[in-house]
Amino acid sequence: MNQLQLKEQLKQFLIEDIGRGDRSVEAIFAPTDRDEGVFLLKEAGVVCGLWLAPMIYDLLGGDVTFTSLVAEGTQQSAGTAIAEVRGPIAALLTGERLILNLWQRMGGIATATKLAIDTLADPTTRVCDTRKTVPGLRELDKYAVTQGGGFNHRFGLDDGIMLKDNHIAYAGGITQAVEQVRRNTGHMIKIEVEIETLDQFKEAHDCGVDIIMLDNRTPAEIKQFLKYNKKQLTTEISGGVTPQNIRQYAGCGADYISLGYLTHSVTALDISFNSKSNGKI
Amino acid sequence: MNQLQLKEQLKQFLIEDIGRGDRSVEAIFAPTDRDEGVFLLKEAGVVCGLWLAPMIYDLLGGDVTFTSLVAEGTQQSAGTAIAEVRGPIAALLTGERLILNLWQRMGGIATATKLAIDTLADPTTRVCDTRKTVPGLRELDKYAVTQGGGFNHRFGLDDGIMLKDNHIAYAGGITQAVEQVRRNTGHMIKIEVEIETLDQFKEAHDCGVDIIMLDNRTPAEIKQFLKYNKKQLTTEISGGVTPQNIRQYAGCGADYISLGYLTHSVTALDISFNSKSNGKI
Amino acid sequence: MNQLQLKEQLKQFLIEDIGRGDRSVEAIFAPTDRDEGVFLLKEAGVVCGLWLAPMIYDLLGGDVTFTSLVAEGTQQSAGTAIAEVRGPIAALLTGERLILNLWQRMGGIATATKLAIDTLADPTTRVCDTRKTVPGLRELDKYAVTQGGGFNHRFGLDDGIMLKDNHIAYAGGITQAVEQVRRNTGHMIKIEVEIETLDQFKEAHDCGVDIIMLDNRTPAEIKQFLKYNKKQLTTEISGGVTPQNIRQYAGCGADYISLGYLTHSVTALDISFNSKSNGKI
Amino acid sequence: MNQLQLKEQLKQFLIEDIGRGDRSVEAIFAPTDRDEGVFLLKEAGVVCGLWLAPMIYDLLGGDVTFTSLVAEGTQQSAGTAIAEVRGPIAALLTGERLILNLWQRMGGIATATKLAIDTLADPTTRVCDTRKTVPGLRELDKYAVTQGGGFNHRFGLDDGIMLKDNHIAYAGGITQAVEQVRRNTGHMIKIEVEIETLDQFKEAHDCGVDIIMLDNRTPAEIKQFLKYNKKQLTTEISGGVTPQNIRQYAGCGADYISLGYLTHSVTALDISFNSKSNGKI
Amino acid sequence: MNQLQLKEQLKQFLIEDIGRGDRSVEAIFAPTDRDEGVFLLKEAGVVCGLWLAPMIYDLLGGDVTFTSLVAEGTQQSAGTAIAEVRGPIAALLTGERLILNLWQRMGGIATATKLAIDTLADPTTRVCDTRKTVPGLRELDKYAVTQGGGFNHRFGLDDGIMLKDNHIAYAGGITQAVEQVRRNTGHMIKIEVEIETLDQFKEAHDCGVDIIMLDNRTPAEIKQFLKYNKKQLTTEISGGVTPQNIRQYAGCGADYISLGYLTHSVTALDISFNSKSNGKI
Amino acid sequence: MNQLQLKEQLKQFLIEDIGRGDRSVEAIFAPTDRDEGVFLLKEAGVVCGLWLAPMIYDLLGGDVTFTSLVAEGTQQSAGTAIAEVRGPIAALLTGERLILNLWQRMGGIATATKLAIDTLADPTTRVCDTRKTVPGLRELDKYAVTQGGGFNHRFGLDDGIMLKDNHIAYAGGITQAVEQVRRNTGHMIKIEVEIETLDQFKEAHDCGVDIIMLDNRTPAEIKQFLKYNKKQLTTEISGGVTPQNIRQYAGCGADYISLGYLTHSVTALDISFNSKSNGKI
Repeated sequence: MNQLQLKEQLKQFLIEDIGRGDRSVEAIFAPTDRDEGVFLLKEAGVVCGLWLAPMIYDLLGGDVTFTSLVAEGTQQSAGTAIAEVRGPIAALLTGERLILNLWQRMGGIATATKLAIDTLADPTTRVCDTRKTVPGLRELDKYAVTQGGGFNHRFGLDDGIMLKDNHIAYAGGITQAVEQVRRNTGHMIKIEVEIETLDQFKEAHDCGVDIIMLDNRTPAEIKQFLKYNKKQLTTEISGGVTPQNIRQYAGCGADYISLGYLTHSVTALDISFNSKSNGKI
Repeated sequence: MNQLQLKEQLKQFLIEDIGRGDRSVEAIFAPTDRDEGVFLLKEAGVVCGLWLAPMIYDLLGGDVTFTSLVAEGTQQSAGTAIAEVRGPIAALLTGERLILNLWQRMGGIATATKLAIDTLADPTTRVCDTRKTVPGLRELDKYAVTQGGGFNHRFGLDDGIMLKDNHIAYAGGITQAVEQVRRNTGHMIKIEVEIETLDQFKEAHDCGVDIIMLDNRTPAEIKQFLKYNKKQLTTEISGGVTPQNIRQYAGCGADYISLGYLTHSVTALDISFNSKSNGKI
Repeated sequence: MNQLQLKEQLKQFLIEDIGRGDRSVEAIFAPTDRDEGVFLLKEAGVVCGLWLAPMIYDLLGGDVTFTSLVAEGTQQSAGTAIAEVRGPIAALLTGERLILNLWQRMGGIATATKLAIDTLADPTTRVCDTRKTVPGLRELDKYAVTQGGGFNHRFGLDDGIMLKDNHIAYAGGITQAVEQVRRNTGHMIKIEVEIETLDQFKEAHDCGVDIIMLDNRTPAEIKQFLKYNKKQLTTEISGGVTPQNIRQYAGCGADYISLGYLTHSVTALDISFNSKSNGKI
Repeated sequence: MNQLQLKEQLKQFLIEDIGRGDRSVEAIFAPTDRDEGVFLLKEAGVVCGLWLAPMIYDLLGGDVTFTSLVAEGTQQSAGTAIAEVRGPIAALLTGERLILNLWQRMGGIATATKLAIDTLADPTTRVCDTRKTVPGLRELDKYAVTQGGGFNHRFGLDDGIMLKDNHIAYAGGITQAVEQVRRNTGHMIKIEVEIETLDQFKEAHDCGVDIIMLDNRTPAEIKQFLKYNKKQLTTEISGGVTPQNIRQYAGCGADYISLGYLTHSVTALDISFNSKSNGKI
Repeated sequence: MNQLQLKEQLKQFLIEDIGRGDRSVEAIFAPTDRDEGVFLLKEAGVVCGLWLAPMIYDLLGGDVTFTSLVAEGTQQSAGTAIAEVRGPIAALLTGERLILNLWQRMGGIATATKLAIDTLADPTTRVCDTRKTVPGLRELDKYAVTQGGGFNHRFGLDDGIMLKDNHIAYAGGITQAVEQVRRNTGHMIKIEVEIETLDQFKEAHDCGVDIIMLDNRTPAEIKQFLKYNKKQLTTEISGGVTPQNIRQYAGCGADYISLGYLTHSVTALDISFNSKSNGKI
Repeated sequence: MNQLQLKEQLKQFLIEDIGRGDRSVEAIFAPTDRDEGVFLLKEAGVVCGLWLAPMIYDLLGGDVTFTSLVAEGTQQSAGTAIAEVRGPIAALLTGERLILNLWQRMGGIATATKLAIDTLADPTTRVCDTRKTVPGLRELDKYAVTQGGGFNHRFGLDDGIMLKDNHIAYAGGITQAVEQVRRNTGHMIKIEVEIETLDQFKEAHDCGVDIIMLDNRTPAEIKQFLKYNKKQLTTEISGGVTPQNIRQYAGCGADYISLGYLTHSVTALDISFNSKSNGKI
């Protein structure tokens, strides 16, 4: 991850939440008032993003001590204390919401990813993400997928060639599109083609792309198409896969399944912050 | 909304997705290649954020014509064409994912808000949001809540005083905390106090706050507490309200119910982009 | 105050003054040349902004020790040494002008605010500021007002609703305007209405705004109007109040007097920096 | 002036004032509501910064027509309509305060500059500014000085060498300091030396600086010193000059008088915005 | 290329050159003074970056008409007029240096690339660049390489995996390093390994990397190594190739030769701007 | 130099190179893996920019110890170890390319400058640079010139007036142009005029500019023109001077020779980074 860019983003996130100042904190606390607190996992899930908290406290200034109590990316049960912190109460309260907003989203993504992998239960097929992330959070969303055991698809439109129906139609066919790409593009970039029919699969296979994406195909179709993968090209299942039906794709033989819902429909992992001063620890 | 800041954000969102260039588009299309397309709603829901699309196409340059086919913030059925667009195919394809990522999230929030209001079915109690938004998207998340018929709570820590257990404990009690705030704070800022017991409700009521938040109280408790609201202070239910139990809070007499899940656990509204060149229109 | 944004601003202020480098300092001093100095108040006034100096020296790098000799926000007499500093002479000289430019303006605002309060001599009416601040310095200007004993009005157009003649005319009257606002706006935002006549006062009072601003009214009119303030709404005197006539508004019974001149017509508080190397300490 | 940087600054100034949105405007007006208005000078003075208004309206979007009614930098009498504008009422109201805050400050500076020049009444001595400007507004402050008929001293620490007592003490004397500068510095940069005694004047003169600043000297001293200006070096009076005593410096023979008060103690020029909708035009 | 980021960069480049204003232009010209001019190629070479000029003039404002007279990326002879322009003389003069600085560097890179390709004279081996570009100009430097007929290697450290001696040593060998990468990395990223010996070549080949870089190998060694390329993996020659010796690598059978000197040691292509007002057209 | 701006630039340069993360480093190394390395000069030249490395390592975080082994701006022979470093291998590898890209360019500029001065071999004529620098690197390019013993011409269009043929033609002649400038411009800015004929030289001399640039004149012409420099104005040779012919300008009597090629056609100084882990130290 690009830590320099991330730090700038965290600064912007704090500025968004603080606005012109934390009026409640300013009205009540002195800079010397200190507190300690615990972050509690309120439901079972994969903990993700712990290391962001010290970066956030650091931006807020002051002498905050943060300690992770569990390992990043591990499944934990409900009720687990995942981190403890002590420092100026102003920093603890002003930073609380941003930390929770990030951890709850990232924990939600990691947990959903792990669930998908466990449900699929086919170690020969990897689960990966898509570009259906929240604008501004692509790197953190995709990092959370890896912490749940998944893999990352493209980080952006520059991170690999993806030839879809529009590109193919304009170029005059898969073979023509791939040739045009090869003529204009260097050797460091992968080429993936999206296909829907067996003929398209064969054409993509023969013209030498790096990856074939089987778009919205049934498990039966996928198995049929993959028989023609003589060159053992990387293959990816995409479209229409849900937590409910992912198990059906086990044993299809594809290398990857990409899941948009991992990042576009996130259920927050429930985490709370309890402090000595609020009497909850 | 602050359009100047929003425009800068949209620019950053495009930069995040484009990276060093849309390699697929660059490899296949000429600047003069044009296309037209339709955005289709694939499930019923509240359409939200339509006006963002022309801002995004404008950032991408080129002569794009965008037309909304439905009104912003309206409920539409599955299969509805919500907007059409024509312009350089490069702009249409490079902008597609950002537009969908925003619309799907915002539509999901607006739809969930509308569902909450319809389920509650009590026009005397307004539904509102929280600060549990995705970092960087607070204004758009909160805007989406209003398009679903909801209202906005604080936009940030500067946008009203919220006295919680920590603040109260440090100040020595609700009355002391409120007095301290009044001593230090001007007349343009509202003061809300979070309470859990009837005694706290009475104390908050008597010392003259603007809003009382009933934190994690049952409908029965809420009704009991509100009998003591002689000054008709604004009241807010918060904590533990879900789509499943919100109906139980109807008729409690509170002015607002705040719902964290509206923005922290969003299910994307399914929308797709179909273009002439991909043969789907 | 938002310290993260403030730090970025101070950086920009230094960049504005330094340009491509402090040519005089670069031509004469070595990084190891050190000096010590004293900031002297050259006329009586309220000292304000002391804590900005260490932030500025920190941005300039190097090992600078800064010590305040008086308390922030206190009135001091002419000739008082308000702070002392020692460190690399390059940092001391390069930072001197920015520190003085900020302190002289902020001290001027705080001093004028204190003078207004002392002249008014009515503790039941608070003095507050307006949005007539220097662009880019709103938070520091308004902070200086509080250090002189005053209070802050709106920080921006989002920080409360202010209904003026234009808004009221378009809405069809005060009552209609307020109803329209209430329909569209949540519970965390205050509503202030600007009035000029007794009838307007009564209408505003009855339709339930939070604050009534009496615009350009004489002390006699204000006293008359306030007799009708049955709900004890917050009231604010605004317009035409000067250091010369503010005493006349004592005893009018309003809660606030807002003064544009505090921030739009600032007389700098005279402060100088004297160092050992220039032979002045 | 650097228009690219200025445009970014104006954007930041609007963001500062608008915050998360002009709540009053959003609650009342539709995008199609239009208005027209007039900017009125309420006291006599030099009008300055008119061209900033269309840049600001342009940032706010919408179709605003702005027309200056007087020439930039001209003295106008009280009651003069200086500009008129028509467009969406939202843009007119949201932009009003920033435009007035800039025009009132710049008009104040220009008017004070013209007054200083008229009072001095010696066309052989030019009036100029200092670096005692408001942080973030140096270019606009200095531009306003020129519109009042004054000239600009250094824009920043890179814009000419200024050798003060500290530099001279460290270098071992004026001659040594100037030699050291010449050894390290190219031919595009001017060298000014600050002197207090006749001996220093002579030394500075003989070692070949470009400009001699007579710091805090009386008119009599200045006349005496300037007799020794054989090389007709540029000379500058600085320190202790006020609107009250500036007339005494006429005929002293110096080329420039620099006045800190022009920009550090600005009295706003009174300007108001009246619109059709508020019934004032 | 990312045009949104490029536009921000061009703005920064103009700000760097203009500083606080083009003093010479401001002192002499009125906004209505217009001029026309021609950009002349003063030596033979490949013209590159023409389309940047209208972006730059657009940032400077004003009504400038720019017309390219030759096609982007074409070889032209000395004396060719490559573009003509007419508009406000202020814009023409203020923008001249930035346009020339960009065009001369980009033309130099494109010309050197074309020369390398022509000298190599082996169409089966493509010429490509490296990350040895000028900081801040990577995209423009690499674009210039393509205009000279070359191809692009990685745009950054995220744009493909490159395993060098350090990585391999820490992982315990080429095979171990590649396995470790495959375990942690998705399917959209290419893996290149740098090798120096035949054994390393064989190991890299067998463990299934995408690209093998032959680092600092002689033509004879390269030919020998490539005999073992049974899988027809992409191969790249790198290190020690100069304009003087590149011809020796023809016929070696590698797919790419990467040349650091194309971007780290650029000889500017000589281009001048002649205008009507300077009497040169 | 403006260190605050420089630090921001270095951050951008790292972001450009790192993109979304150093994939190779992330895949292989743990944060605790450490290494040490040496920067070796591979050809003789002037070492320049050493102090940038600790700034870059600092931005990358981690505990890196950097030690310069030679003095900044000194000529060193091929094979010299110029700096050594130890720290996390991730920081060393991720920062390596940016450090080398900067050092190689800056060393190239400094070395070329020193060569020009040594070849000219006339200490009465100083070598200086131009504005023909790489966009975004002007301050570092110009700093490198000083480390090679040269001097800096204008840093930007605001840093002195340069009257060229266009300015002069529009103003109606050299004398008129200079008078116009003097009327509008303060005393801190130098005026240089570009001349081509003896008559122009005399006119410029007599009307009192600060510097005369002799544009594209032969040594013989220069000697002839300078006979008329009665006021001993600063003079500058410019145009057509190359490493091959610079010796011919010795003894011409001009104060400066400006050389565009120092910064527009840089040959990188060859420097490499060798680390313990790659077995090269």
